[in-house]
Amino acid sequence: MSLRKHVSLNINIRGTGQSPTLAINERVKLLQSQGQKVYNFGLGQSPFPVPGPVVEALRLHAHEKDYLPVKGLPALREAVAGFHKMKDNVEASPDGVMVGPGSKELMFLLQLIFYGEIIVPTPCWVSYVPQAQILGKRVSLLHTCFADKWHITAEHLAELLEGEQDLYRPRVLVLNYPGNPDGLTYTAQELHDIARVAREYEIILLSDEIYGQIHHKGGHVSVARYYPEGTIISSGLSKWCGAGGWRLGTFTFPETLDWLLEAMASVASETYTSVSAPIQYAAVEAFRGGIAIERYLWHARRILSSLGQECYEILSDAGVRIHAPEGAFYLFPDFSPFSEKLARRGICSSATLCERLLKETGVALLPGSVFERPKGELTARLSYINFNGAQALAAGETIALHQELPEEFILANCEDTVAGLERLVEWLQKD
Amino acid sequence: MSLRKHVSLNINIRGTGQSPTLAINERVKLLQSQGQKVYNFGLGQSPFPVPGPVVEALRLHAHEKDYLPVKGLPALREAVAGFHKMKDNVEASPDGVMVGPGSKELMFLLQLIFYGEIIVPTPCWVSYVPQAQILGKRVSLLHTCFADKWHITAEHLAELLEGEQDLYRPRVLVLNYPGNPDGLTYTAQELHDIARVAREYEIILLSDEIYGQIHHKGGHVSVARYYPEGTIISSGLSKWCGAGGWRLGTFTFPETLDWLLEAMASVASETYTSVSAPIQYAAVEAFRGGIAIERYLWHARRILSSLGQECYEILSDAGVRIHAPEGAFYLFPDFSPFSEKLARRGICSSATLCERLLKETGVALLPGSVFERPKGELTARLSYINFNGAQALAAGETIALHQELPEEFILANCEDTVAGLERLVEWLQKD
Repeated sequence: MSLRKHVSLNINIRGTGQSPTLAINERVKLLQSQGQKVYNFGLGQSPFPVPGPVVEALRLHAHEKDYLPVKGLPALREAVAGFHKMKDNVEASPDGVMVGPGSKELMFLLQLIFYGEIIVPTPCWVSYVPQAQILGKRVSLLHTCFADKWHITAEHLAELLEGEQDLYRPRVLVLNYPGNPDGLTYTAQELHDIARVAREYEIILLSDEIYGQIHHKGGHVSVARYYPEGTIISSGLSKWCGAGGWRLGTFTFPETLDWLLEAMASVASETYTSVSAPIQYAAVEAFRGGIAIERYLWHARRILSSLGQECYEILSDAGVRIHAPEGAFYLFPDFSPFSEKLARRGICSSATLCERLLKETGVALLPGSVFERPKGELTARLSYINFNGAQALAAGETIALHQELPEEFILANCEDTVAGLERLVEWLQKD
Repeated sequence: MSLRKHVSLNINIRGTGQSPTLAINERVKLLQSQGQKVYNFGLGQSPFPVPGPVVEALRLHAHEKDYLPVKGLPALREAVAGFHKMKDNVEASPDGVMVGPGSKELMFLLQLIFYGEIIVPTPCWVSYVPQAQILGKRVSLLHTCFADKWHITAEHLAELLEGEQDLYRPRVLVLNYPGNPDGLTYTAQELHDIARVAREYEIILLSDEIYGQIHHKGGHVSVARYYPEGTIISSGLSKWCGAGGWRLGTFTFPETLDWLLEAMASVASETYTSVSAPIQYAAVEAFRGGIAIERYLWHARRILSSLGQECYEILSDAGVRIHAPEGAFYLFPDFSPFSEKLARRGICSSATLCERLLKETGVALLPGSVFERPKGELTARLSYINFNGAQALAAGETIALHQELPEEFILANCEDTVAGLERLVEWLQKD
């Protein structure tokens, strides 16, 4: 059997390896177990605990054992629709909601069932392209640039489409804002303009708004406001609710796209069946919201905003090209101002940059190349999440919400984050 | 967009609909909500609650929020390996264990990554063939017969393979015992003989033992005892632990098949990521076992054994072709002795039989055709699970375990099950 194993694997799977965001975490743990001090800016996990009322709801429903409907627990589908209505001011119906074991799984199902082109602006989340590869599909990448704040523009999109032979080819365009890996978002006007182009060319938008509730100023706007009939909103518990490990994501479809929803539910019924019942009952509490969850969000946002700003300033002051963060917990620095210096040290790609940085300083970043940026571009993702979220939330609660967090707060509660940034800067400036 | 929706779906997905086992449940609920009395023998869900210590463990770990390793929580992988060692007397290493959101999802991943033939004896579990269809693959069905207790034999398998051009073509053979939909199992000798043929032709066995712990006499034997190097054992919490809705399944690979495990983990990292963390922590308690769980299993088995026997006798006495059940909670009656009578009523297929039966009596069975049996064969699956499992367990605890359950026990605790069977028999015997 050993000889034939190489030919008995699907050719699309061979050599794929593990998702880089998960792999970095396992690598960091290994280094730590060897006694090395690591500043882990690699993983995209919320530093905050799951809000108390949501954990309590899981305890309360721990005995729930029935297989739930494929699309989700009716009460949860209702809560999710209510959440998007209330938070995003968009029309959403419980009938349009589909619950899955993470929005990653839902995205995979969408790629599996959709017979058409998937367009992904880069830098993009790490799994879109490997998912397509596993399915033997092709994703069309649309490279954006630093000057455009790593965003696509309506003009950019229209230009691309005008050059196509088949104007109305079925297409899904993925938008992710606040964005992973950039931590930036679109303005209402930008979304409005993109929506206009999408409507004109009948493009379906997959609007990945999983970081919507951690827009640093609470000012998230959904593109579904401008193009409700063509937008699928992706959300979930992982980021704003600190429950990445719980594995619960949601897609919310408009009625016009119910044919996609039904096909996804078919495949779901033959794969994961339904999401874990106790988790779904608990998620109802999260999506319904309430004062305790609002308070949690306000405090989380204030901490992320202050810390993100601090990290941005350290890098910016050191001469790194970078935009001030607007949401989520990511920065996407561009180290090109150091390219000559780095080249002299044999560093000419983002992968080598991160490899050497980790080895020489213990600072773990993810290279821009895993976000589908050109290999030679000296970009990387920095997740400013290596601090004790529970401690920081409790400390933040002692400071009235109308105040900004003083700089000492960050130094006291996110010491390792700042220390890691300083090591990074020191390493960059070496000759 | 409405016009083009028909062409924008993957051709393999169009018209698949929902898994029949889940669909029957939604159909039954609809009829019940319309006020009809339904005897639901359709769903394959354990009637028993999740054991107390396991629910308690979920409560205790409700706050766990981290993304867990793709292959599973190390403590759980260890507990699963220990479970198979202790219960099945097979060599199993924690490194060979992979945890997924249901064994159905793991089976889908296996079909996706394996480049070779999948052989499935029928009657078989409902999802193997639709999964292959979704992936654009073909499954080779191997029809068994009533006289062989719906089992394949070593001779049958050898005969099939000797007729092939490519003897060593990569192949996975799926075995499921105690079996869904038949409720029957293999003897140690039969497994031993099948293992010999599998070894000779280098066939990988996917041994679906999810009902192993509800062998009615506690006498489950795994084929991995006879062919450890080529057997993947599939298990999970859904059946013996009453936690279908929790969604946790496991595959246990021998070291020789680690290349399959690694490829599955790659795809998992790009799809569901990992199984819900609180659920995994709770599952450790289930797989580690202990006296409370053993007691639960003994009581559950005694109830299923008595009730299964009672149902079998009612059908057998009425003239239905049927085997006495050995495990799980299924019977797979063959109504062919009534074929002429049924034909006069316009019933010539298992689908029509179940459709008419449900409409005319409220008794819900699943037709043999969804288990890949020929459409005209008058077989169906009957799940004897429509009783209050918690009540039955509590009542059973008052009767010493060395005693058999008296007939009154079944009448008192599984009244609806017996009543449904009687309605079925009455309907069959009509002219």
